[in-house]
Amino acid sequence: MDAWTIDDALQRGRAERLQFGPLNYIRFLDERPGLPRGTVILGDTLMVSGYPSIGRIQVLASGLQRHYSGGFWAEEKMDGFNVRILRHGDAVYAFSRGGFICPFATDRVPELMNTAIFDDHPELVVCAEIAGPENPYVEGSPPRIKADVELFVFDLMHKGREGFLPQEQKLDLVDRYGLPATRCFGRFRARDVDQLRALIMELDAEGAEGLVFKGAAEERRTKYVTGRSNITDIALCSEQLLDLPPEYFSNRLIRLAVFAREHGLREDRELHLELGAAFLNGLHQAMDHSLDHGRVGHGFRCRFRAEQNALRFMDHLKRTGGSRVQIAADMPRRDGDYWVLEFERVLERMTGTLSNTLTGGFQYD
Amino acid sequence: MDAWTIDDALQRGRAERLQFGPLNYIRFLDERPGLPRGTVILGDTLMVSGYPSIGRIQVLASGLQRHYSGGFWAEEKMDGFNVRILRHGDAVYAFSRGGFICPFATDRVPELMNTAIFDDHPELVVCAEIAGPENPYVEGSPPRIKADVELFVFDLMHKGREGFLPQEQKLDLVDRYGLPATRCFGRFRARDVDQLRALIMELDAEGAEGLVFKGAAEERRTKYVTGRSNITDIALCSEQLLDLPPEYFSNRLIRLAVFAREHGLREDRELHLELGAAFLNGLHQAMDHSLDHGRVGHGFRCRFRAEQNALRFMDHLKRTGGSRVQIAADMPRRDGDYWVLEFERVLERMTGTLSNTLTGGFQYD
Repeated sequence: MDAWTIDDALQRGRAERLQFGPLNYIRFLDERPGLPRGTVILGDTLMVSGYPSIGRIQVLASGLQRHYSGGFWAEEKMDGFNVRILRHGDAVYAFSRGGFICPFATDRVPELMNTAIFDDHPELVVCAEIAGPENPYVEGSPPRIKADVELFVFDLMHKGREGFLPQEQKLDLVDRYGLPATRCFGRFRARDVDQLRALIMELDAEGAEGLVFKGAAEERRTKYVTGRSNITDIALCSEQLLDLPPEYFSNRLIRLAVFAREHGLREDRELHLELGAAFLNGLHQAMDHSLDHGRVGHGFRCRFRAEQNALRFMDHLKRTGGSRVQIAADMPRRDGDYWVLEFERVLERMTGTLSNTLTGGFQYD
Repeated sequence: MDAWTIDDALQRGRAERLQFGPLNYIRFLDERPGLPRGTVILGDTLMVSGYPSIGRIQVLASGLQRHYSGGFWAEEKMDGFNVRILRHGDAVYAFSRGGFICPFATDRVPELMNTAIFDDHPELVVCAEIAGPENPYVEGSPPRIKADVELFVFDLMHKGREGFLPQEQKLDLVDRYGLPATRCFGRFRARDVDQLRALIMELDAEGAEGLVFKGAAEERRTKYVTGRSNITDIALCSEQLLDLPPEYFSNRLIRLAVFAREHGLREDRELHLELGAAFLNGLHQAMDHSLDHGRVGHGFRCRFRAEQNALRFMDHLKRTGGSRVQIAADMPRRDGDYWVLEFERVLERMTGTLSNTLTGGFQYD
């Protein structure tokens, strides 16, 4: 990417200069030809590619058949947030999907993985999911993570280049440096659909989110989620029914029905019961919140090693969330070796609608 | 409404001249100061007011308290479509909510009610719901109507005037002319909330849609629906999940949760089960339809006495529905004394999405 292109994007407001500690970087607001959204430039020239979107298949049989003529790897898809981790100068930084340096992830990464890999391979970018109940971004969390967050590496890239290291090379480096990684279930072909169906039902039972398929020779990647992950998402987010884009719910309902059809669960009463409860329990929780606090909101909690990073994160919340984020005056709060930050994202439409509805207001619809 | 106002609206495209048989009429596209949407002018001067929207309350206790200081009537709310019926010249016409003469309702009204009331009272406009499984507009139908449609009078108006006849006068005329009418459950006050809660639970159990409250002295009207009516709507319309406005579903989910809270059904597993089944069964039906017919659609069937009215209705469908309405070449079909019309409303977004999804296509979301 030449300087002219960068300057041009900066001038047109499609890129912005940002700073984090000593590091100056440029974040692109859109995807670029050949470069996914979230691509950044370190200093003035070193490009780090964004992490590309992965297409979703909903039917395992026809989906694999249609997209893979050869072998592909199946890895666990984790319910967390995506970061790209790299060392630049003496410091390790973690970039969010959108291309911001995340003060939370940057703060915690040295605890969550061994960064010695960057001593030998300063050219590497580690792509990972950070997941767990104490994260500041997403409501969901893998059930096996009981507290705080954990990190799971799923890809390696090179600075200055698009595309990923081949799977074998990634597995080798993960192994050599003892990196925590997403589970890899092996190599399959489209004809192994029965085996993969059995695998997804195991993942469904343990509450895992799903699978990512990575073409062994082809570059194509696809993702496929469990039926239960849709119910879990609805249960976690139905308190936000009017604040999330409506597709959040309709997409998950369709995925769940398509999943049930392929896996013989069409008449499964347990599934019906769980889906109904997912919607209604979240809405009851929202009503409780409305009546108790005069607003509807979702609470987040996360911990930092350095107070400065907690303050940076709070600053980011205030800048982007405005009045939609409530932070108590005593935050961040010292807690043992950590600085704990608790905040609430206020759900404005749910707050307004429930407050009117529960006090007997009427609506025209 | 003076001629100038009408001409002005016609010139600005906010009113249109229409014809039905010998009758010329003008339909307003918007509400007018003091006149609801659907207001029409017969010939060039005789105004017939639109039927006003009714605000919805979701909590019986606080809603009644807030909106009624005095007495109010409680009548059954029926799940059908709203018409205004009048005699003009020698003919009886039925206008839709939007102000069109409906060929279906106009065709069937003389069978559904005794129009002798217009011999004595040519100034009256009869406001009624037409409901039943064989109607061309709405998916829902009161469970006690097993075939065809029935008509239920709930209000009387005067041509040329806004507002309704007082309840006692309406009940008297309904009685005198033996008109079929919505059930009137009597007169209440806000303090009778326990009695009304018991009534709504009875209506819920029999599958009725809900209640309309009409202030006895005050003009204020409100409506309140059963919990089950929300589930029924979702069950009937989940096959249209992507084709209906998303508020269709989110509003009903919230209403159901608020209803469950007020009526002590928060932990009701049966309700959860029914809600889950409502979403999933409709989606399975949509998938069946997609795989069997290459499209998703909802079938309607209705009957006419006069072939000409069936043809008029088909013409209306073709004009307004375009390729979204499928009508077989042999329609309308003679069936005993009637002309039967069957057609299908094609659900374009469900058709596209399911066809891509079920054949293994992928989506970015």
